[in-house]
Amino acid sequence: MSADALPAAALADLRAAIGPAHVLTGDVLAGSDGDAWLLDRRRRYVGRAAAVLRPASTAEVAAVLRIASAHRLPVVPQGGNTGLVGGSTPDESGHELLLSLRRLDTVRAVDAANLTMTLEAGCILQTAQQAARDAGLLLPLSLAAEGSCTVGGNLASNAGGVQVLRYGNARELCLGLEVVTPSGEVWDGLRGLRKDNTGYDLRDLYIGSEGTLGVITAAVLRLHPPPRGVATALAGCDSAEAALALLHRALAGSGGALTAFEVMNAASIALVARHLPPAVPSGLLDPSTSASPWTVLLETSDASDAALARDTLEAVLAEALDDGLTRDVRVAQSLSQSQAFWRLRESIPLAQAADGLNIKHDIALPVSRIPAFIAQADAAVQALVPGARPIDFGHWGDGNLHYNVMAPAGVSPADFLARWETPINTRIYDLLHPFGGSISAEHGIGRLKRDELAARHDPVALGLMRRVKRVLDPLGIMNPGRVLGSIG
Amino acid sequence: MSADALPAAALADLRAAIGPAHVLTGDVLAGSDGDAWLLDRRRRYVGRAAAVLRPASTAEVAAVLRIASAHRLPVVPQGGNTGLVGGSTPDESGHELLLSLRRLDTVRAVDAANLTMTLEAGCILQTAQQAARDAGLLLPLSLAAEGSCTVGGNLASNAGGVQVLRYGNARELCLGLEVVTPSGEVWDGLRGLRKDNTGYDLRDLYIGSEGTLGVITAAVLRLHPPPRGVATALAGCDSAEAALALLHRALAGSGGALTAFEVMNAASIALVARHLPPAVPSGLLDPSTSASPWTVLLETSDASDAALARDTLEAVLAEALDDGLTRDVRVAQSLSQSQAFWRLRESIPLAQAADGLNIKHDIALPVSRIPAFIAQADAAVQALVPGARPIDFGHWGDGNLHYNVMAPAGVSPADFLARWETPINTRIYDLLHPFGGSISAEHGIGRLKRDELAARHDPVALGLMRRVKRVLDPLGIMNPGRVLGSIG
Repeated sequence: MSADALPAAALADLRAAIGPAHVLTGDVLAGSDGDAWLLDRRRRYVGRAAAVLRPASTAEVAAVLRIASAHRLPVVPQGGNTGLVGGSTPDESGHELLLSLRRLDTVRAVDAANLTMTLEAGCILQTAQQAARDAGLLLPLSLAAEGSCTVGGNLASNAGGVQVLRYGNARELCLGLEVVTPSGEVWDGLRGLRKDNTGYDLRDLYIGSEGTLGVITAAVLRLHPPPRGVATALAGCDSAEAALALLHRALAGSGGALTAFEVMNAASIALVARHLPPAVPSGLLDPSTSASPWTVLLETSDASDAALARDTLEAVLAEALDDGLTRDVRVAQSLSQSQAFWRLRESIPLAQAADGLNIKHDIALPVSRIPAFIAQADAAVQALVPGARPIDFGHWGDGNLHYNVMAPAGVSPADFLARWETPINTRIYDLLHPFGGSISAEHGIGRLKRDELAARHDPVALGLMRRVKRVLDPLGIMNPGRVLGSIG
Repeated sequence: MSADALPAAALADLRAAIGPAHVLTGDVLAGSDGDAWLLDRRRRYVGRAAAVLRPASTAEVAAVLRIASAHRLPVVPQGGNTGLVGGSTPDESGHELLLSLRRLDTVRAVDAANLTMTLEAGCILQTAQQAARDAGLLLPLSLAAEGSCTVGGNLASNAGGVQVLRYGNARELCLGLEVVTPSGEVWDGLRGLRKDNTGYDLRDLYIGSEGTLGVITAAVLRLHPPPRGVATALAGCDSAEAALALLHRALAGSGGALTAFEVMNAASIALVARHLPPAVPSGLLDPSTSASPWTVLLETSDASDAALARDTLEAVLAEALDDGLTRDVRVAQSLSQSQAFWRLRESIPLAQAADGLNIKHDIALPVSRIPAFIAQADAAVQALVPGARPIDFGHWGDGNLHYNVMAPAGVSPADFLARWETPINTRIYDLLHPFGGSISAEHGIGRLKRDELAARHDPVALGLMRRVKRVLDPLGIMNPGRVLGSIG
C-alpha cells in the first residue's frame, strides 16, 4: 500500500536479502489477503504497512533487521496474528514493516529422551502439538487459537490457556530461545537445559516482551509424558466461596494431577444455551440444577493408570458433596462426554460473539481474593449500569478471570460499548488495585492496554522497563508504541 | 578493618541511616565473627570490607544504596553467605560495603487460600519452610544449606536443590519480588499472581542476577499442598544408559509424582563407606549388589493417599526389574529407612570434604546426553591423570551433574589440585560445549566462574547482559566483578 513510505534503497536491500517475491507492497496488500496481516483478531485495529516481509530463515530475519536499523524503519513482528491486544498489526501510518515469521516453520528436532523439542517461531501451535504427539509426548500449551497461532507469538505474549494450572504458561514451557536483536545480531540460546545459572535470564526477558525488544526466531520447548488417563467433571456450586473451597479441596486431594479448574457463572451458561444450545450438556439446565450460580469444570489426569484419574476426581467430588461445597456433580463417563463438557466452556466466547459486542477483561487476582473481587465488581457494575450482565468465566486455578460485561437486555451492544466501555474498564481496574490484581493475566498489553499500564503500573517498574527497552532497542524500531509508549 | 576506605561523610550518613550499632567497621570485623561475613563457604575467598551494614528494613536498604550511589561505593549484598562461587563475600580491596540482609527476616504473610507466602529476603530458608508447614503447606525449596542460607540469597542465585524435578528451581517458586535499585528506588512487585502479563519480566531478571543489578528485599513464594504419602527407593543400575532409561520409565509411570531422581556412581558410595560408614544403608554393599556401577535414589509423592506413592513407585520398579533396567531394588519400608537413603546421598559431599580437596563441577546437560558425556569425561580425565577418581553424582532428573574429580590414590589432594584443577576444568568445559551443556547448573557464576563465562558463553548473550548491567546499574556499584567482569 505504502511502498512510497519505504526509501528506494531500503526496498532494494530488502528484496536482495529475502527475495523480491517475499517483499510484499502496494496492491498485493489490498483486499482480504491483506486483512490476514493488517487487521487484528478482534477487528479493533486496521493498519497499513510499508511492506510485508516474509523471510524464510533466521539469517534472513537478521538481514531484515540490519536493513531496518540502517534505515531506522519500525518493525512489527507477526506470527499467526491472533493476539487480542493489537500487538501484532501495523499502525495506520503506513510506515511500519510487517515482519511475518510464518515461513520459519520447521520443527528442527524432537529429543524424546530429553523431553524437549526445538522448533522455529512460525510453527503453528497445533503442528507443534502434533509433532510432540508423534514422538509419544505431550506439548501441553493449549488455547483456543491453536489452529492458527504460532509458537513464536505464544512466547512473545507468554500465552496461557487451559492447562496452566498443571504445566504453567508458555514461559514455564520454554527452556531456550534463539533471538535476533534489532541490530541483526543472533543470540543462540537454544539450550535444552532444566538448570542453567549462567548470567542474566535473557530468555524470560524476551518471553512476554511482545516483539518490542527483538524477534524470537526459534525455541526449545519442554515436553511431558502424556497422561494415560484423563477425567472430567462438572460441579455446581452455590457461591463463589464454595467454588474456591472446591478448588482447594481438589488441589489438596489430587496434587499435581489437577489439570484444569474452570469456573462459569450462570449467565455464561445461559448465554451458551441461547446461542449454541447443542453445546449445553443435556440435563445441565434441568430444573433441579439450573439454579447453580456457578458451574465448575474440573479435570484430572494420571500418568500411570487410566482409571486412577477418575478415581481421584470422584473421591474429591464425593468428599466435596458430603461437605456441601457442591450439590450437583457429573463425572464424564466417556471421552465424548468429556469433550461435551469442554465444548460448554469453549462455547462461551462464541456465544458472546453471537450476542454482540461486550466489554472484556482479562484479569488476574490472588486466588484467595476472587470471591470478594467478584462481589465488589458485580455491585460496581450494577451501580453504573443497572441490568448489565457480567459474563464471568475463567481459569480460577490460575486466578485468571475473563470478567466480561454485556449490555442490559434490550440495550444495543454498540451503544452500550460506546457509552460504558471506558467507565466500566476504569471501575474494574480501580477495583483490582487493592486486591493486588493485574489488568492483563494472559493477553498482554499491546496497544490496547498500553495507556492503562502507563497509568496504573508501579512507576519504578515502568522506569526499569523503559530503561531495558532503551538499551536493547536503542533506535526504538521494534514494535514501537506497543507495551510501553514513547520512551524518548 | 578499613573504615579509612570510607569517606567520613559516607560513614556518618550510613550511621544516621541505619543506626551506628549496625555499621560495623574496624576491630569488630576481625576474628571469627568477621569470618561469618568475609570468608566464603568453600574458604576460597577471604575478603575485607569497608564496613558491614545491617539495615533492618527495605527503607533502610534504600537509604544505604542512595548513600552508596552518592559516594560511588561498591556494595556486596549478602544473605547467609553460603554461596559456592564467591558471589557474596567482599574482595580483598577493603573498599566494598558488605550489605547484610539478615535483619530483614520477617515472614510478612501466609495466604493459605492463595498458596503463597510473602517474606523478607533475610529469612532463613528453614524458617520459611517451617512457616509454610505451620499453615499446613509445603515450601518445596530444599537444599543442603537450608539451615543457614536465606531466601533472598536463594532467589539471587536461583537455587536448585533436591526437589527441582517436581517443583522447579527458586525461579519457578517465586511469584513476586520487592527490589531496591542501586539508586535507592524501591520496586514493589510483591504480587501473588500465577498469571501477569504486564510488561517485561523484571522478576526473572533479578532472580539469578547474584546481586549485581539490585537488592532483593522481599518476595512472594508459591506454596503447595503437602503430599500425604512419600515413597523412597534405591535401585542399582549396570550402566548410565540403564539409569537414564529408568528415569524415563519413572517419569512416564508416575507423571508429576516423581519428586527426586538422584544418581550416584560406585566411587561416590565407596567414599561414603570409607569416611561415614553409618551413612551407607545396611546391605547396600553386600557382595551381591556392591558391583552396581550406578545407584539411583528415587522418590515419589502423592497428594491424596499415603499408600499410593509407594504403589506407584513399586509398580515402576517392578516393570524396570522385568525389563532389566535395574537389577537390585529396595523400597524404604519406613520413614527412618527413607531418611537413611537420603543420608547416603547427602553424605557424599561430606565424605568428599573428609577425603580432602577435589575438583568440583556443577554442570548441566540435556538429560539425553548424560551417559555419552560421562563416558567422554571419564576417558578424558583418565587420559590427563591416570587413576584420578570421578565422584559423579547429581540430580539427573534435572540434567544436573556434580562431576567432581579426586586425586589418584596416594597422591596429595593439594598437589593434585594445584597441578590439575585448571587443565581438568578446561577439558570438562570444552567437552560440555558440543553437548549443549552449561558450566553452572545451580551454583551460579560469582567470581569463581566469571572468566569462564566471559570466555565460553555466547558472545551475543554476553553483550546483551553487559548492556542490561550498564543500564540498571549505571555507576557499577552492585557486586562489581561478579558474574560479569568490568563492563566499562
